[in-house]
Amino acid sequence: MSARQLLQLDHDFVMKGGRLNRPALAYETWGTLNARRDNCVLLFTGLSPSAHAASHPLDPSAGWWEDMIGADKPIDTQRYFVVCINSLGSCFGSTGPASINPSTGKVYRLDFPVLTVEDIANSAIPILAHLDVEQVHTVVGASMGGMTALSFALMHPERCQRLVSISSGSRSQPYAIALRSLQREIIRTDPLWNQGNYDLAQHGPVNGMRLARKLGMISYRSAEEWQIRFGRERSSDTPDTDNLFGINFEVESYLQNHAERFIGAFDANCYLYLSRAMDLFDAADHGGSLAASFTHLSLRSALVIGVSSDSLFPLQQQHELAAAMKPHVEDTQMLALDSIQGHDSFLVDMDQFRPAIAGFF
Amino acid sequence: MSARQLLQLDHDFVMKGGRLNRPALAYETWGTLNARRDNCVLLFTGLSPSAHAASHPLDPSAGWWEDMIGADKPIDTQRYFVVCINSLGSCFGSTGPASINPSTGKVYRLDFPVLTVEDIANSAIPILAHLDVEQVHTVVGASMGGMTALSFALMHPERCQRLVSISSGSRSQPYAIALRSLQREIIRTDPLWNQGNYDLAQHGPVNGMRLARKLGMISYRSAEEWQIRFGRERSSDTPDTDNLFGINFEVESYLQNHAERFIGAFDANCYLYLSRAMDLFDAADHGGSLAASFTHLSLRSALVIGVSSDSLFPLQQQHELAAAMKPHVEDTQMLALDSIQGHDSFLVDMDQFRPAIAGFF
Repeated sequence: MSARQLLQLDHDFVMKGGRLNRPALAYETWGTLNARRDNCVLLFTGLSPSAHAASHPLDPSAGWWEDMIGADKPIDTQRYFVVCINSLGSCFGSTGPASINPSTGKVYRLDFPVLTVEDIANSAIPILAHLDVEQVHTVVGASMGGMTALSFALMHPERCQRLVSISSGSRSQPYAIALRSLQREIIRTDPLWNQGNYDLAQHGPVNGMRLARKLGMISYRSAEEWQIRFGRERSSDTPDTDNLFGINFEVESYLQNHAERFIGAFDANCYLYLSRAMDLFDAADHGGSLAASFTHLSLRSALVIGVSSDSLFPLQQQHELAAAMKPHVEDTQMLALDSIQGHDSFLVDMDQFRPAIAGFF
Repeated sequence: MSARQLLQLDHDFVMKGGRLNRPALAYETWGTLNARRDNCVLLFTGLSPSAHAASHPLDPSAGWWEDMIGADKPIDTQRYFVVCINSLGSCFGSTGPASINPSTGKVYRLDFPVLTVEDIANSAIPILAHLDVEQVHTVVGASMGGMTALSFALMHPERCQRLVSISSGSRSQPYAIALRSLQREIIRTDPLWNQGNYDLAQHGPVNGMRLARKLGMISYRSAEEWQIRFGRERSSDTPDTDNLFGINFEVESYLQNHAERFIGAFDANCYLYLSRAMDLFDAADHGGSLAASFTHLSLRSALVIGVSSDSLFPLQQQHELAAAMKPHVEDTQMLALDSIQGHDSFLVDMDQFRPAIAGFF
């Protein structure tokens, strides 16, 4: 069962670096659009999730933000009409490098145009038009989704009243670029990547994807959390005693189990495109400087949330974002949480994030 | 020209997990042993450096701690007789997995016994005996070398008067284990590793080594340093415009250039053994708990130095080490530096490290 809705465009979609012939755009919705059509919450995702942010009558499986969206939850679907969009370039319904190009009848692979965060933000426009939503109540995003939400607010100020940016920033810093660049190189140098021309059913560079996912997990969590959670505990999985360098510590099992679940669930080429899009994003490009870009904003309020243990989007970046926004959005709030789960805190530290989000809505 | 000295043992060397048939031990020395033979400073290295810590009349090339060792430098070779040891298991003279096993006439490769930090510490004993040094003035080490120095002080309390531990700890934490485990997996899953049976002259898994080194560099530095140093500067190297995912940002060039220099300079199997040794080390193994282990110590003084931006050995670990040492070493000093260069600060932030080390000596 799927609650996924597909909007099949009957015209070209113009990207920053090319155009797509009649792409599909996938999304899910919860709640009901009110008569004034002013209660839509638009949610952009991080790099890898699908549009299934929460369970739905048509798909009761838990979504990636299950605790946050629903009746009597922080984003209350009795009040709000929530729309979550599967990012353009991803592989969960929206057209991406793993989709067939109708112009050629072949899978795009590396013929897909360079993807930018702005393209993902713009892909919301046809969906909102289809849903007959002129202006969204709030655009929300975490991690890459926060960049996309900011990008949406910069490019479509008339369509956006409020912004919530979570564990994100106005641009990628070199440390995060280095981590993602290395993840991409790990995938690209797996011989099974084959310049992007792998058998999609076989998932191609599975080893590269496993290693890249492990590096992702390391960058998404924190040393402090793992010290408390794992310490030097040895793995309870059957140890691979024949292998001098095999799994020994519990933290190694944890990474292995997480990475295995990712294999086959995400297309490698899509991952490469989305990862690069994050590196390329710089809100300053919308005006020559951050200050000049933010003159475009026309928001009633903004909430910027960051986490002290986030090494991918350090708290300092959220302070910078909020400070740059303040002159143009009078009601800008900055919220620094002391979660220890690093960048991923917004997915797991619900005791801190629920009240933070509920407070805004 | 080389200043390296080789001690060829004529007997077996007993390791925690096996024995080596007549290994060689490489070291370099600076300064002169005094008549009382009480001015020896014993230096253990991090994972990858050789024993060439400083220039020498026989080898004027700069060493890896050039600013620290020499006449009128913090470790003044006019006063001290400095001995730096190439770690057992490494590939710069001391016997390791890339050496020939005299028992078989073949390269050890994965037949080399499991390596521990304690084995590296014990390899100093024959060298000190050869140099006729009964007791060292100070044992010093940074990173893995700090673990080795601590291990030496725990196992040979009568041979050691003072200890300096830099950016190290009493054990590896799970975050650091995860990073090293991933580096090893990257190397081991390079098809050219071939279960350790690569052509040594061809350097085997060069791609795996390049990627592992890049991950090392990311873990050795800090986000703050790179933000100041690189920002979002584009690479000045000829951009690889044909490659959608090639080098674009300066931070990517920096990693590439650093990693290329590592290829061919370090043997992959040696790297795997030394990396695993760091994970396995836990000073608590010497007594059942850290407190019980440290009752073995018989030091006159100890200096523990850490750096606020170190993510591999967070400052908290140095505080723990110093606190655990204090009941047994009355003159224990803890020094927290606010260098921004992360774990590598002891190699690069000389303005802070020179006075710190000079103050001790």
